[in-house]
Amino acid sequence: MSEVRAWVREGGLHARRYFNNVEVQRKADRSWVTQADLEVERLLRERIAARYPDHGIIGEEQGVGAIDREFVWCLDPIDGTGSFVAGLPTWCVSVGLLRDGQPYLGAIYLPILDDCYWAEAEGPAYRNTTPIHASTATTIDNNDWISVSSYAHRQYRIDFPAKTRSLSSVAVDCCYVARGSSLGALIGRANLWDLAAGLAIIRAAGAVAVGLSGAPLDTAQLLDGRRLPEPIIIAPPQLVDLLRSYISRR
Amino acid sequence: MSEVRAWVREGGLHARRYFNNVEVQRKADRSWVTQADLEVERLLRERIAARYPDHGIIGEEQGVGAIDREFVWCLDPIDGTGSFVAGLPTWCVSVGLLRDGQPYLGAIYLPILDDCYWAEAEGPAYRNTTPIHASTATTIDNNDWISVSSYAHRQYRIDFPAKTRSLSSVAVDCCYVARGSSLGALIGRANLWDLAAGLAIIRAAGAVAVGLSGAPLDTAQLLDGRRLPEPIIIAPPQLVDLLRSYISRR
Repeated sequence: MSEVRAWVREGGLHARRYFNNVEVQRKADRSWVTQADLEVERLLRERIAARYPDHGIIGEEQGVGAIDREFVWCLDPIDGTGSFVAGLPTWCVSVGLLRDGQPYLGAIYLPILDDCYWAEAEGPAYRNTTPIHASTATTIDNNDWISVSSYAHRQYRIDFPAKTRSLSSVAVDCCYVARGSSLGALIGRANLWDLAAGLAIIRAAGAVAVGLSGAPLDTAQLLDGRRLPEPIIIAPPQLVDLLRSYISRR
Repeated sequence: MSEVRAWVREGGLHARRYFNNVEVQRKADRSWVTQADLEVERLLRERIAARYPDHGIIGEEQGVGAIDREFVWCLDPIDGTGSFVAGLPTWCVSVGLLRDGQPYLGAIYLPILDDCYWAEAEGPAYRNTTPIHASTATTIDNNDWISVSSYAHRQYRIDFPAKTRSLSSVAVDCCYVARGSSLGALIGRANLWDLAAGLAIIRAAGAVAVGLSGAPLDTAQLLDGRRLPEPIIIAPPQLVDLLRSYISRR
């Protein structure tokens, strides 16, 4: 596990050298990609291929390969590229490992905060060296918050009676649920490379991920690179149905 | 001006020592205050009183004094206390100076990014040593964003056709408008201590602040500590009416 933490940190510090001095290109879906995204994904792929040549790898920028393997790495070299380009601090490097299609371990590094969130199989979740846990709240206070996507205003009616924040990174959303700072996250469009590390971490921190409909999330079906079939809620189990009840399609 | 930049930096580095290790208390309105808020405001008041004993000072934590003076300082020791408590990076120290009730100069320091945004009377706006300017866009791209408050989901219908982010600090919102990263900001509840520095900076960066109704913003009437009479939009002048058209009360 310490090697994975070293990889996300190495990638994050590499990306940080471009921060506040970024040139953007457009991908086919008109979203942004930067030189930093491409270089960090290449770096992560090299590290993994050298250490685990038999494992599969899927990544945001260079696609899907060998997903029939027992172990498949899921890489988002910069989750929150929009934040990265805007000079905002909420972006990260996310590396997750699936085993038989299920989240197994993950590490997420936020270079501006120098925070690494991570969890290994069967272990607790950590922020750096501090164990973390999702919220144990059972009711909602006016200072509580959930994170929502940056398109949520167009897609959902949200009647959550406290605060919403949009941090612009699914992986960062997962970290703040895992440390118990936010009560939950509403995640709309996402692929497995956005989610794999975060799902391992929130599970280790005592939170769950379910579809907005209540259906379970099947990560194995996302291995081919497709998007989530429906939005998901990430939250501690005692809050997940309450949060679902506040959110409807607009 | 360099003294004001030194004050916000000193305050921010002081607050940062508490970051990730914060105890919260509740104010009368149930919002949070921390030891760091109280200590940083005391520090700023001491610096200002020693240097400008004849000036007025209003601050979030210790209230309003001598607002009949030509020069009145407006202090928010930590704007974004909720972010600060949550371990999020988007909080800042904000110090603005009004002259005859109008924004005159301001400095905003974001300790986690080590970014200081500032403007003096008649001058351009800066991020650290780099001149900044609000967006010159005249149309909206799907990667563009505006910032909104963390209560916006309950209060407004927002039909902005791109992204919204909530950074949880009015002063930080102003900085990202001023540097041209965001196209604008919708600010709901705010007092002069949240706004004074940001208004000086966005004005120097070529942006404006107007009420959601289109009414001009009268900062002088906020000197007694009252809240904004209506939400305001901060944006470059060519976009402000377009942004207003996307937002209605829910």
